[in-house]
Amino acid sequence: MRIDSAKSSRVKQVAALQTKARCRREQGAFVVEGLKMVREAPGERLLSVYASDSFLEQGGEEKLGGIAFTPVSDAAFKAMADTRTPQGVLAVVKAPDWKREDFSGKGRALLLFLEDLQDPGNLGTVFRAGEGAGVTGILMSRGTVDVYNPKVIRSTMGSVYRVPFAVCDDLEAVLRQCRKEGILSYAAHLGGKINYEEADFSGPSAFLIGNEASGLSEKFSAASDFLVKIPMAGQVESLNAAVAASVLMYEAARQRRYK
Amino acid sequence: MRIDSAKSSRVKQVAALQTKARCRREQGAFVVEGLKMVREAPGERLLSVYASDSFLEQGGEEKLGGIAFTPVSDAAFKAMADTRTPQGVLAVVKAPDWKREDFSGKGRALLLFLEDLQDPGNLGTVFRAGEGAGVTGILMSRGTVDVYNPKVIRSTMGSVYRVPFAVCDDLEAVLRQCRKEGILSYAAHLGGKINYEEADFSGPSAFLIGNEASGLSEKFSAASDFLVKIPMAGQVESLNAAVAASVLMYEAARQRRYK
Repeated sequence: MRIDSAKSSRVKQVAALQTKARCRREQGAFVVEGLKMVREAPGERLLSVYASDSFLEQGGEEKLGGIAFTPVSDAAFKAMADTRTPQGVLAVVKAPDWKREDFSGKGRALLLFLEDLQDPGNLGTVFRAGEGAGVTGILMSRGTVDVYNPKVIRSTMGSVYRVPFAVCDDLEAVLRQCRKEGILSYAAHLGGKINYEEADFSGPSAFLIGNEASGLSEKFSAASDFLVKIPMAGQVESLNAAVAASVLMYEAARQRRYK
Repeated sequence: MRIDSAKSSRVKQVAALQTKARCRREQGAFVVEGLKMVREAPGERLLSVYASDSFLEQGGEEKLGGIAFTPVSDAAFKAMADTRTPQGVLAVVKAPDWKREDFSGKGRALLLFLEDLQDPGNLGTVFRAGEGAGVTGILMSRGTVDVYNPKVIRSTMGSVYRVPFAVCDDLEAVLRQCRKEGILSYAAHLGGKINYEEADFSGPSAFLIGNEASGLSEKFSAASDFLVKIPMAGQVESLNAAVAASVLMYEAARQRRYK
């Protein structure tokens, strides 16, 4: 059924999902914008799709390739959208429920532990690069920016659908459990005694990446098996968190191609 | 001399430098915000420093460690600042004038060619990771976002002072000149036939990185010596431009540590 009014209750529901992490948690759902994100969403998790008049006038129905949608006025769409220049199509998507075995990588886990990452663009970029490098899962502290923040979703470029992830109350406990399962962990740390490329990431491995401003907490990095450093020339004090994570993950991928 | 009014002509000049690339070009100057950026600015390039009343009340003069400054009212400072929650200190800095030899890396150049990078955060991150990896210079097309855009400056975390860079009318001509000087060039390209780590970056090398949405132009990537690909698992179509640049630069740095 078409929605005309920007004040319709469904419009308000979608807008609340965009802006309120609490609503997303309560409903177990989040919003994605743009044709690419709507089309890549796993079909069984698509709860509802909204397409604006402008989008439909420009061949939107065909672009959606058979995905069922609700037409909405441009005004109603604008009230639902997070982006300033919306593409005219968005979807409410059911949050995934990853199982423990999804993270295992069939015995060759490559995990990422993120402690309190704050920047939405960084988190999204980590998902995208992580999928590219072949990580088998991303574990995040409660203090990490919400994965379903619209800016995070956008920067994942779809990886949010495919990379197993979990938000953990106690990252250290998860790390201890990983060690029991034979996964060695490497904290990206300025005080690391070995260069990252000297470590052997060909077995089950996990990387620990800390907050943009303060890095990893002493407590959490002490819980890792090794502190590794990414050498830095010039006067650079640290790397951007997404860059540090990517350099480590791609080094692991590189080593694994030759072992 | 103290500035009280947010409408003072000097306040307007600084605000214009923040928002207008044309003003920055005409005056050969740009604005940096925050104590770290002001303190790291090369002394001979500091044209003027402004400190707000609030900043000075919180021990700002001592933090500036002898750098001369003009005190300004909080209102005037706010009118000069680009950030929403300004730190209370900013400086107008003379743009550097890098010479050709600054890029040479004493015979072991590691150059980055950026074609039409658009995202300010990406460009700043490339500078920061570039300094960390030891690049000897960054060459940008005219279509690249302005280095002196306040968001770019912030994300460089100071690297903008230290990494030689130039904006070029004709990147291809510069690339041809580099080849004559013995620099081999590698375009990051989805159609690359060799994986990036199979190339030898230990000699003078240059990487070509393209626009976030459209990648490198056919013409420019065809002008490179090699197309290299960064292998991608899953359904990732491409990496974030700053991540791709960082993975390549850090692979070069890694190879160089062992050769």
